[in-house]
Amino acid sequence: MNLTILEGKRISFEGNLNIYEILKKNRIFLTASCGGKGSCGKCRVIVKDGPVRVESHGKLTKAEKEKGMVLACQSYPEGDVTIEIPIESMLTVGDKIAISRTRDLFELLKSYKTELSPLISRITMELPAPSLDDNISDLERLKRALNERGINLDYPYSFISRLSDSLRENNWRFNLCYQKESNRAISIEPPVEKPCYHGLAVDIGTTTVVVYLVDLCDGRVIDVGSTYNSQMRYGDDVITRIVYATEGGGLRELRQAVVNDINDLIMPIAESHGIDPEGIESVVVSGNTTMIHLFWGLNPAYIREEPYIPTANSFPVWQARDAGIRIRRDAPVYSVPCVASYVGGDIVSGVLATKMHTRDELALFMDIGTNGEIVIGNRDWLMTAACSAGPCFEGGGIKHGMRATNGAIESVRISPETYEPEVTVIGDTVPIGICGSGMIDAVTEMFLSGIIDQKGKIRDDIKTERIREGEEGLEYLIYSGDGREIVLTQVDIENIIRAKAAIYAGVSMLLKEVGFTLEMIEKVYIAGGFGNYINVERAIVMGMLPDLPVERFRFMGNTSIAGAYLCLMSEDMRREAERIASMMTYMELSTKGAFMDEFMSALFLPHTEIEQFPSVKEMLSGMR
Amino acid sequence: MNLTILEGKRISFEGNLNIYEILKKNRIFLTASCGGKGSCGKCRVIVKDGPVRVESHGKLTKAEKEKGMVLACQSYPEGDVTIEIPIESMLTVGDKIAISRTRDLFELLKSYKTELSPLISRITMELPAPSLDDNISDLERLKRALNERGINLDYPYSFISRLSDSLRENNWRFNLCYQKESNRAISIEPPVEKPCYHGLAVDIGTTTVVVYLVDLCDGRVIDVGSTYNSQMRYGDDVITRIVYATEGGGLRELRQAVVNDINDLIMPIAESHGIDPEGIESVVVSGNTTMIHLFWGLNPAYIREEPYIPTANSFPVWQARDAGIRIRRDAPVYSVPCVASYVGGDIVSGVLATKMHTRDELALFMDIGTNGEIVIGNRDWLMTAACSAGPCFEGGGIKHGMRATNGAIESVRISPETYEPEVTVIGDTVPIGICGSGMIDAVTEMFLSGIIDQKGKIRDDIKTERIREGEEGLEYLIYSGDGREIVLTQVDIENIIRAKAAIYAGVSMLLKEVGFTLEMIEKVYIAGGFGNYINVERAIVMGMLPDLPVERFRFMGNTSIAGAYLCLMSEDMRREAERIASMMTYMELSTKGAFMDEFMSALFLPHTEIEQFPSVKEMLSGMR
Repeated sequence: MNLTILEGKRISFEGNLNIYEILKKNRIFLTASCGGKGSCGKCRVIVKDGPVRVESHGKLTKAEKEKGMVLACQSYPEGDVTIEIPIESMLTVGDKIAISRTRDLFELLKSYKTELSPLISRITMELPAPSLDDNISDLERLKRALNERGINLDYPYSFISRLSDSLRENNWRFNLCYQKESNRAISIEPPVEKPCYHGLAVDIGTTTVVVYLVDLCDGRVIDVGSTYNSQMRYGDDVITRIVYATEGGGLRELRQAVVNDINDLIMPIAESHGIDPEGIESVVVSGNTTMIHLFWGLNPAYIREEPYIPTANSFPVWQARDAGIRIRRDAPVYSVPCVASYVGGDIVSGVLATKMHTRDELALFMDIGTNGEIVIGNRDWLMTAACSAGPCFEGGGIKHGMRATNGAIESVRISPETYEPEVTVIGDTVPIGICGSGMIDAVTEMFLSGIIDQKGKIRDDIKTERIREGEEGLEYLIYSGDGREIVLTQVDIENIIRAKAAIYAGVSMLLKEVGFTLEMIEKVYIAGGFGNYINVERAIVMGMLPDLPVERFRFMGNTSIAGAYLCLMSEDMRREAERIASMMTYMELSTKGAFMDEFMSALFLPHTEIEQFPSVKEMLSGMR
Repeated sequence: MNLTILEGKRISFEGNLNIYEILKKNRIFLTASCGGKGSCGKCRVIVKDGPVRVESHGKLTKAEKEKGMVLACQSYPEGDVTIEIPIESMLTVGDKIAISRTRDLFELLKSYKTELSPLISRITMELPAPSLDDNISDLERLKRALNERGINLDYPYSFISRLSDSLRENNWRFNLCYQKESNRAISIEPPVEKPCYHGLAVDIGTTTVVVYLVDLCDGRVIDVGSTYNSQMRYGDDVITRIVYATEGGGLRELRQAVVNDINDLIMPIAESHGIDPEGIESVVVSGNTTMIHLFWGLNPAYIREEPYIPTANSFPVWQARDAGIRIRRDAPVYSVPCVASYVGGDIVSGVLATKMHTRDELALFMDIGTNGEIVIGNRDWLMTAACSAGPCFEGGGIKHGMRATNGAIESVRISPETYEPEVTVIGDTVPIGICGSGMIDAVTEMFLSGIIDQKGKIRDDIKTERIREGEEGLEYLIYSGDGREIVLTQVDIENIIRAKAAIYAGVSMLLKEVGFTLEMIEKVYIAGGFGNYINVERAIVMGMLPDLPVERFRFMGNTSIAGAYLCLMSEDMRREAERIASMMTYMELSTKGAFMDEFMSALFLPHTEIEQFPSVKEMLSGMR
């Protein structure tokens, strides 16, 4: 059967696949934050012609259905079909985040004063050809020369099985490739004049997967790809995934899902740059502890059960074939080390990217992704905790939530007189959803304009058509046009307040533990998908960020991928990551009663103890 | 189609297979020193019923053909067929060699005063269960406990992927299995009360493959299996095999052939003792350098080309899955280290079995297998050489040659008056061929009785019907009966004399190199398939063994398997093998002109310089 895309290509397919799957197999990615299980309602396409069996229309409106709109993940072609893909359904590749800019990353690497030293080391060697007087074996000859350089390696079967021919094909002059961390000889290569090697930095987020294809010789990021983590279809957060993993075959499914995502990202990128995937020779993965366990197929069950124990925090350098990544089979794969069950390599990457562990000043690092992890410390100590914020700032669990990509409402202003909103949209396109920074803006503006009260309750006594009864109770209409409506529901608002409360409570707990006060924090680094766009003042008003002068905040974007990049490029950075991981003291919040108290107090806008937010107090009193 | 064996089982098969192959697939092994290519004429079966396409009758006589006799490897059933297998065509499993007796081997091991320490080490551990206060990862917990014992391992993916479940299933009390030489963690096991582990000692000879199944807990040899090396079909000696290996796909074929032989030996043995092959957990292989290269699939081409360089002499401990041996996939496989291209691990094993490297006395070790390697030395030094004797003493290249198994003529007496022979046969059965000791006897007796002259030429002026014109010139009829004849041809005799000359010339060269004389040799250790049966006096008369008092000779049997056994049982023995390999100085004979002179002089019975054989000189002068 054929699936034809209007003004696009024609795809042949077989079997009972839905449109989302058919497109994905052909490297056309639709937005689908639920991973394709029909619940997020974002993978909309319009059927122009041909028989399609629709299993569910989800939340599509009558008007949309009449236009032929279907959810791709719920629609199965039963013959030749022609579809149109609205621009807003296309997943935008490329994260619009500060640190992703090549120059920034490379400058960061340079600032560490480190040499380029990727996972595969190469040394040019020339061995004396054997003779009757010097007739030791090929392996001994190689070892003898390496011993003189103080190098002593392990030789896997794959290396020795090609040794004698490689040496002679290269006439005893060659590059020896080896992997330092695992001390393993990899291969013998012709000595090249103009070397060109490629590697991958991979951030495995609970919600998104990001891949950077990097030129290992000059540190250039050649291209960037990102997609939703397909594990989303098995659950929004790490806990539901762990539960799923412990069911029969679940672990394998979850593993396969994320490995497929990575492979699906690599192939088209490599192809478009004329790079043979077999020539990609090293990988660094960074992610939270559960994601790394799932990526390697390690049982995550004990992460969830008290006393919350992962199989490992530090992982040996294994190979691409062990991981199932379809590049050079023996490519080393380095996992940025984790700290504990709920503080992973993504946070170690974050500290590495901020350099807070190298400075005297007291700094706070907050990674506001699906979980919400925080680090406090300086060059002498680092203290960390995780605060279960949930995935809402990445679009999860929010009716029209989405990541900070094209089509996302990133900022909102609401007139206190008319209650009418004004929005800006990433990419200046028609809005299709709202991202984390938009949510913070919206909740804060709704609070300041009196649409919601201090507990986040939508007031039903305000005269505006923007406030209305929706399917899930009261909701506020942020945008309507082109038959599309974007709302923030009462449930959404409660989710957002719970998330911000968890984050703030975590900061409070950690500060109390180390005996510092808020004002002593000299720098606040904020990482997370919404990155660039967050409005600090508003986040303070909402009570998510501590009430500190705006100039102390720095937005770092996706620091997990930044750390992966650093580790991909330099052995020193890998050492540094290990040092950071071992420096960090982990505090388990979930077992502390005091955390629940802090959390409850923070379920207010901005906080039950307004004294903790002096600038907000002043502002609010000025308004009244 | 079915193949029915008279008074035996019925085998179903499909495809165009010959009877030899069908039987082999069903674990019925026929004698076939040529490996099944139709040239040795030993795999005789009698077709009782059914259509068989015979491609060649080889050297079968008219009478044999009339009885329905065919060569199994040349005969293809074309429907249901019934055959009878003569007892003498069955390959006898079990080598009748001195050192194969369990007690001898175990005594030898004990004499080294070493502890049992197989390739997999086990330590019983008990870890404190994790708690909120001690919440390091499983891997760190294990490492912490191992560090306290001074053990620091590598953790392969296969180990860590099962770690968290294994620890908990065993309630934190378990045996840790690891491999010392490769420093690799292997698995976590329940702590067993009565341990029972099995391993394999394997001797890969050019002509034969021998496997010992060993109980690793008490050193008991549970069973023994042996077969011809199927590589025989690609050539009798290492040189023709190397040539074959360098042809397209040849290396893979040769590798598969020997690995299949080993697997075919393991399966029925394990089955008959109720041992799960998956439970066989370690392997030691011993063999000459070419055999080990072929076993591991390493290109042997450069072994043959001056300056004769192997890929490696010492091999890392790889795994059963790398080798293709169908036992526990991650079972460590240790290769007894080699010395040079033509002195392999079989010779290192030999020295280990003789203990000559631990004594003050000057000793000579001779391994008379397919090649013929010698070692001279004592505790302070070891000198070694290979002398290309060819496979004749193992039955190769001799018309009716065979290994020293049931049915082999092992000794011959010839009346100087009547020229009539008297023979003894291994197993007291009908003779089906002649083995190495029988050949030495026969040639010596033919010389002493005047049937051949000093150059080995059969005299045509002697009046006996035993000497006659055969297909290949003159031959001597050693046995006839039951329609079967066993002869020694002129070509056979020349082959035997060339072999003994090569061996003797090698000994002479090595002695000259180190500046010793024959009489200074205090002990001569003789290893090789013919083992027990050789008659020293006669071998001296023939000029194969040096003219020394009989009491200085010791017969060691298959010392290659003995060394493999020792290394299988003990880490000290593996260290010792490595020490021996590094102690040995290799002398390349083939490039020395003097060797050719020595060889030419030794092509005489006993030698052109009769002064080197004073006892023979005296004996001959007494006869005249």
